[in-house]
Amino acid sequence: MHAIEEQTALLEAQLANLDFPQTPSNLYDPLRYFFTLGGKRMRPMLTLMSAELFGLPKQKALSAALAVEIFHNFSLIHDDIMDEAPLRRKQATLHEKWNQSVAILSGDVLLVKAYQELCKQDSRHLPELLQVFNKTAVEVCEGQQMDMDFETRTNVSIDEYIEMIRLKTSVLLGCALELGAIVADTTSANKALIYEFGQHIGIAFQIQDDILDLYADPMKFGKQVGGDVLANKKTLLVLKAIELASPAELSLFHSLQNESVPQQKIDATRALFDQLGVREAAREMMDSHYKIALRALEQIQVEVTQKLALKNLAEVLFNREV
Amino acid sequence: MHAIEEQTALLEAQLANLDFPQTPSNLYDPLRYFFTLGGKRMRPMLTLMSAELFGLPKQKALSAALAVEIFHNFSLIHDDIMDEAPLRRKQATLHEKWNQSVAILSGDVLLVKAYQELCKQDSRHLPELLQVFNKTAVEVCEGQQMDMDFETRTNVSIDEYIEMIRLKTSVLLGCALELGAIVADTTSANKALIYEFGQHIGIAFQIQDDILDLYADPMKFGKQVGGDVLANKKTLLVLKAIELASPAELSLFHSLQNESVPQQKIDATRALFDQLGVREAAREMMDSHYKIALRALEQIQVEVTQKLALKNLAEVLFNREV
Repeated sequence: MHAIEEQTALLEAQLANLDFPQTPSNLYDPLRYFFTLGGKRMRPMLTLMSAELFGLPKQKALSAALAVEIFHNFSLIHDDIMDEAPLRRKQATLHEKWNQSVAILSGDVLLVKAYQELCKQDSRHLPELLQVFNKTAVEVCEGQQMDMDFETRTNVSIDEYIEMIRLKTSVLLGCALELGAIVADTTSANKALIYEFGQHIGIAFQIQDDILDLYADPMKFGKQVGGDVLANKKTLLVLKAIELASPAELSLFHSLQNESVPQQKIDATRALFDQLGVREAAREMMDSHYKIALRALEQIQVEVTQKLALKNLAEVLFNREV
Repeated sequence: MHAIEEQTALLEAQLANLDFPQTPSNLYDPLRYFFTLGGKRMRPMLTLMSAELFGLPKQKALSAALAVEIFHNFSLIHDDIMDEAPLRRKQATLHEKWNQSVAILSGDVLLVKAYQELCKQDSRHLPELLQVFNKTAVEVCEGQQMDMDFETRTNVSIDEYIEMIRLKTSVLLGCALELGAIVADTTSANKALIYEFGQHIGIAFQIQDDILDLYADPMKFGKQVGGDVLANKKTLLVLKAIELASPAELSLFHSLQNESVPQQKIDATRALFDQLGVREAAREMMDSHYKIALRALEQIQVEVTQKLALKNLAEVLFNREV
């Protein structure tokens, strides 16, 4: 079995074994359901890979890895309420399948469970693990609030946007990797570098998400191509377009936001973006974060061959089409 | 200054100093607002008193005390959403003053802040502090879910009701006290006893809450007397009434639930409860938990004079009229 598949299988088995009590069933049934919806399990995999990078058998970082994945699922449950999302991985979200109170409270208890899982690691690592985990958890909340604020703001800058995606999603990748590094007792410099790697891979990944929304191959993409355009979402493509547009092009862009025929809206917006070179500009930003990430990985003081797994993972991520 | 007032002042000063960042303002302004609403600060006071009981200067337990109060406020913010409560301490709740998403996310970040505060205690106590805190946090969520489930259930038993109030509110009092005991490095036996004391004081306190709702002096009671009756809430009085009523009295009780004239509903329900001896039955249950609490306090291995502060506090609580 391929190493990544093997790790995913290990993680799925552990997540399936999360020992939620039977009662109150309205608190724990929703969580049992949510973990059956699957997911890439990318974050806990990063924790395990980081532990291995620094010479620790991955089994010894399992609780830290699970804590990150549990936290991620907590944030998805609450984000889905705030975003009024009806579906998550093509299945009903918790507030849809049960109700909103159930989704709030199940999310709350899941956040506590993340801490319980983290606390299973050796107590000598606890202060440092908690310090990184707490800081990250606060940042993820801040990123979600920024994202919500952007919906009603008209003057979001590209710097603010990058800061939002950094907080909302990228710091958790950095955290996932750093927790593995902490458990493996590596140097402070290595811990900081692996965190940097994760953070910039995360930013690059999110930029790619924005690009794929409009430029993915519809035959391969799992979602509607152009979904962000239809929702008038302020993605990096939009912010870049606003930056690069002439007054006339800007006015065209704004009029397209009210276009009522979906395919027409997507095609015309894509044509305008192509004319402005938005895709290339976004790709450049993505590449620059990808390079920062790789440079951090290079500087980590371990055998070069040890780094291949993470380097390969980064490459796979950036050659994805979905 | 009286000792309790002095401690309250110390805690208020610390809570006013909680260092929430300025931005994102929609995340942190709501929290700044919520902490100005005040409160009895009973839980953190218990942590400080417990530390002092076991010979530790209260300043050394301040972070643990604040963590408990911060957690309590997190749970109030989310409970208010679930209960659709418009007011908290006569002021607008967060989801009313801002919106629901803001209330969910501010609550989330506050729960993380509770952990950050707890982690400021000496790291050698961290594993034990976290073990108690995590367990309690899970239980509080379970209690809130049971409470919500009871709204739509018709067959709630008195045992289930007591278990619900134990989880929803009493364990946090036990936890508050035990955290102080842990920081003060007392014996395992003492830690278990002070937890028992808090837990049973909590149950007795909640039973008293149910009694006061219908039997408080309207001139002294801060809220509408009979509020639970008007809301058809399943309090201990109701469950006791159902247990003690004859079929005819039960039928009268059920018809009163649809009575539309408020004062009529309250007076007739009180008359029926008086006839059934519901108040005395509830008082007996309250007294029995109060006695269990005092017995636990007696068994704690410290100088008797050291226990006076907690004993006095318990007495004050049970002679309250509001």
